[in-house]
Amino acid sequence: MAKLIAMYKKPADAQAFDAYYYGTHVPLAKTVPGLRSYEVSTGPVATPAGPSAYHLIATLGFDSMAAIQQALGSPEGIATARDLGNFAQAGVDLLIMDSKEI
Amino acid sequence: MAKLIAMYKKPADAQAFDAYYYGTHVPLAKTVPGLRSYEVSTGPVATPAGPSAYHLIATLGFDSMAAIQQALGSPEGIATARDLGNFAQAGVDLLIMDSKEI
Repeated sequence: MAKLIAMYKKPADAQAFDAYYYGTHVPLAKTVPGLRSYEVSTGPVATPAGPSAYHLIATLGFDSMAAIQQALGSPEGIATARDLGNFAQAGVDLLIMDSKEI
Repeated sequence: MAKLIAMYKKPADAQAFDAYYYGTHVPLAKTVPGLRSYEVSTGPVATPAGPSAYHLIATLGFDSMAAIQQALGSPEGIATARDLGNFAQAGVDLLIMDSKEI
């Protein structure tokens, strides 16, 4: 399985962020071809020492790194990436990787 | 499910890092009470635009945030955290969160 982790920094208005994220961005992201799983943080994203810089972490699963690259290049993937500009102005860190259970 | 994500920055010597990580740190982390799953990145950790600052991402699963706090406070958890100083000198970002599939 390959993963795309989207780490959203704390927005100015968390309620507006959440409304847009769950109302618009998630349904859009779910149209991306090859998406196998979608996991989101619930409640605060912390560090062992206290608060973190992040508001929400999403982990999207795909079959392979090639599937992620295809997804990012698809019309639905491009639309989903463009939509970040509508709600993630505080910043989002994206990481992609192959991964396995050990 | 609650998750602890450990994001290891690129080390000076990736081969030495991997040898210590899989040979010593993972077996130690696996002694932590309440650990339910352990996933690691395989191959490079990238961004959609190219290389990332990270060498390896590990995602450890627990039943709840309370279970993570108990794990971090346990003798095994304290020993695992202390062991980071033996191989993660380049830095490691730790995030903890409740999460769910959507």
